[in-house]
Amino acid sequence: MEENHQLKRLEALRRHLKDSRNDGAWIIQPENRRYLSGYRAEDTQITESSGSLLIDERHLFLVTDSRYTVQAQAEAPAFEIITIKKGITEELPAILERAGVKRLGFEPDYLTWQVHKRLGSALKKLSPEIALLPFSGVVEKMREIKDESEIKALETSAEMISAILEDVISLLEPGLSEKEVAWMIEDMARKAGAESLAFPSIVASGPNSAMPHAVPTGRRLKENEPVTLDVGVRLNGYCSDITRTVFLGEPDDEIKKVYRTVRKAQLEALKHVAPGVKSSHPDTVARKIIDAAGYGKYFGHGLGHGVGLATHEGPRLSPLKPVTLEQGMVVTVEPGIYIPGTGGVRLEETVVIGPDGARVITKTDHLNEF
Amino acid sequence: MEENHQLKRLEALRRHLKDSRNDGAWIIQPENRRYLSGYRAEDTQITESSGSLLIDERHLFLVTDSRYTVQAQAEAPAFEIITIKKGITEELPAILERAGVKRLGFEPDYLTWQVHKRLGSALKKLSPEIALLPFSGVVEKMREIKDESEIKALETSAEMISAILEDVISLLEPGLSEKEVAWMIEDMARKAGAESLAFPSIVASGPNSAMPHAVPTGRRLKENEPVTLDVGVRLNGYCSDITRTVFLGEPDDEIKKVYRTVRKAQLEALKHVAPGVKSSHPDTVARKIIDAAGYGKYFGHGLGHGVGLATHEGPRLSPLKPVTLEQGMVVTVEPGIYIPGTGGVRLEETVVIGPDGARVITKTDHLNEF
Repeated sequence: MEENHQLKRLEALRRHLKDSRNDGAWIIQPENRRYLSGYRAEDTQITESSGSLLIDERHLFLVTDSRYTVQAQAEAPAFEIITIKKGITEELPAILERAGVKRLGFEPDYLTWQVHKRLGSALKKLSPEIALLPFSGVVEKMREIKDESEIKALETSAEMISAILEDVISLLEPGLSEKEVAWMIEDMARKAGAESLAFPSIVASGPNSAMPHAVPTGRRLKENEPVTLDVGVRLNGYCSDITRTVFLGEPDDEIKKVYRTVRKAQLEALKHVAPGVKSSHPDTVARKIIDAAGYGKYFGHGLGHGVGLATHEGPRLSPLKPVTLEQGMVVTVEPGIYIPGTGGVRLEETVVIGPDGARVITKTDHLNEF
Repeated sequence: MEENHQLKRLEALRRHLKDSRNDGAWIIQPENRRYLSGYRAEDTQITESSGSLLIDERHLFLVTDSRYTVQAQAEAPAFEIITIKKGITEELPAILERAGVKRLGFEPDYLTWQVHKRLGSALKKLSPEIALLPFSGVVEKMREIKDESEIKALETSAEMISAILEDVISLLEPGLSEKEVAWMIEDMARKAGAESLAFPSIVASGPNSAMPHAVPTGRRLKENEPVTLDVGVRLNGYCSDITRTVFLGEPDDEIKKVYRTVRKAQLEALKHVAPGVKSSHPDTVARKIIDAAGYGKYFGHGLGHGVGLATHEGPRLSPLKPVTLEQGMVVTVEPGIYIPGTGGVRLEETVVIGPDGARVITKTDHLNEF
């Protein structure tokens, strides 16, 4: 992360703090932590934090334990690293007192009920006591609008996964198992220099393609059946996400109709992804087309989601909780139709929202004209 | 999972429910969910649940969304699958009313403050209202004592990672980067048939070995330096975990002394891992040896942790919150010494606690005699 981007983010956070009831922000969510500090450690489990940030008007603290001290020092030079021994609920109160924080904002979508309860009790025992207040979605909201360096990182990540998908599709043949294909993808991703996959690859063949989030099985690819590949890599922290349903041969007429419907829904929806548009609108456009073709009940998920340091982040392109789309947002557009027992089709692109609309940054063709 | 093991687990949970203030348990934690139902889906993010269980005296519900319905039906045949559309906080209240649950137990170490607040408000609006009460650590506690099928699965997983570690150590040579070595391990794991790595491999060379949780870098291995490899696979859901620090050549005298100290601490601690012993005791034994050698301040983490469906679970072998060790627990014993700027050594075995003490199930030697 370039230094001036980081400074801008910290300034923005401090402005949000001033506008809130809080005088300090406690950041535990791993992507938020990385976004604000550059600290790249991940949390392997929700109950296993690799650290948290404490930011107020005057201080930038990164609180971690001895397993991560050296890494934190190297990756977050703007922060003072505090190494704790006993646990965060035991030691954060004294750190807050030292900083002079009176009203601490926490991330309510990430802090567990238990830790909130323990820390809240400890803070109430102090004199004067420190309040623990929700500081909800502030960094997530900042992360929705990508700066130039982030768009570049997302483009590079999208190019890498597009090339990998291109390669793996050219190698598909009957007899390969879903798991073998998933492994080919992971192997290619590592060899291309990805940090990791952005999420476990979906390789779903035949009837398995009716499961939108299928886990690859030992099932072997057969001719003429759909194979859905939903894949992404993480590169310099940033995720990519693309889906194609392809066929080894010629699918039956029903699946062809499904495919045409999904593609039409996607193309129409893409025209409606633009600044100033409600995030539910492209979803509605796609859903109407799928409804009209008689497949409405087989499109169970939302049309898309933001992509950034996390594979799934704001804004959602869905009927629920609409927001206004803005320039600099990066989202997926991925309608799908899934017919239990038969199979399914999903097509997904990732797009950057520019001044005039959506610019597709995933680059694989592999689209059928039925 | 064999059916009779699952039945026993569900019976045990229902006994715990009877003894608690709750008449229903809401299970959202992915390993707890799998343990009780066989449903194997993972959650990619804390805010992205792939489903939850609702268990009371008469019902076994698995609540999920359309992305997972087919998978849930296949993997959790004992459960009635309920597919929701709007979101769990919107739809759980009606499901609870249908089941007749009056006091719902939730997992406080996993449920976020926000979801608790939203669901709690919705449940209060019902007439009669439904209470939302912590049901803390019950399934985690059950999971600490492994049944025969689990011990077998853990042994198989430990054997696989031991063989992989053996192979990768034999291939180490100066000039390979940490990342390349990490990738060799992942490649071997997949080829051996692992579902995935249990956690991102640690490959830490030279001064990087002073970071207990180092992320593999482009740094190339050099002769005579320590290389710490901390690796594990997930096989049939069960994790393995083993660490060796090895040398390409002859380390300097300081590191040799560190190594001897760590190995001595480990061997002594292993003698004290047995049923009836306080879980803090083996840690104290190891810590005394490391202290006596003058390295006390360089052993910052606990001695070990339970291993099962999660890589890190109960019981902890640490000074904090001791419990009594019992037969059937499976834990790691992993003392380490980390000298910033210089390097570190960690040695880790996974052991099953039998009637007479610890039985090591990780099988790689690669131990130095300095």
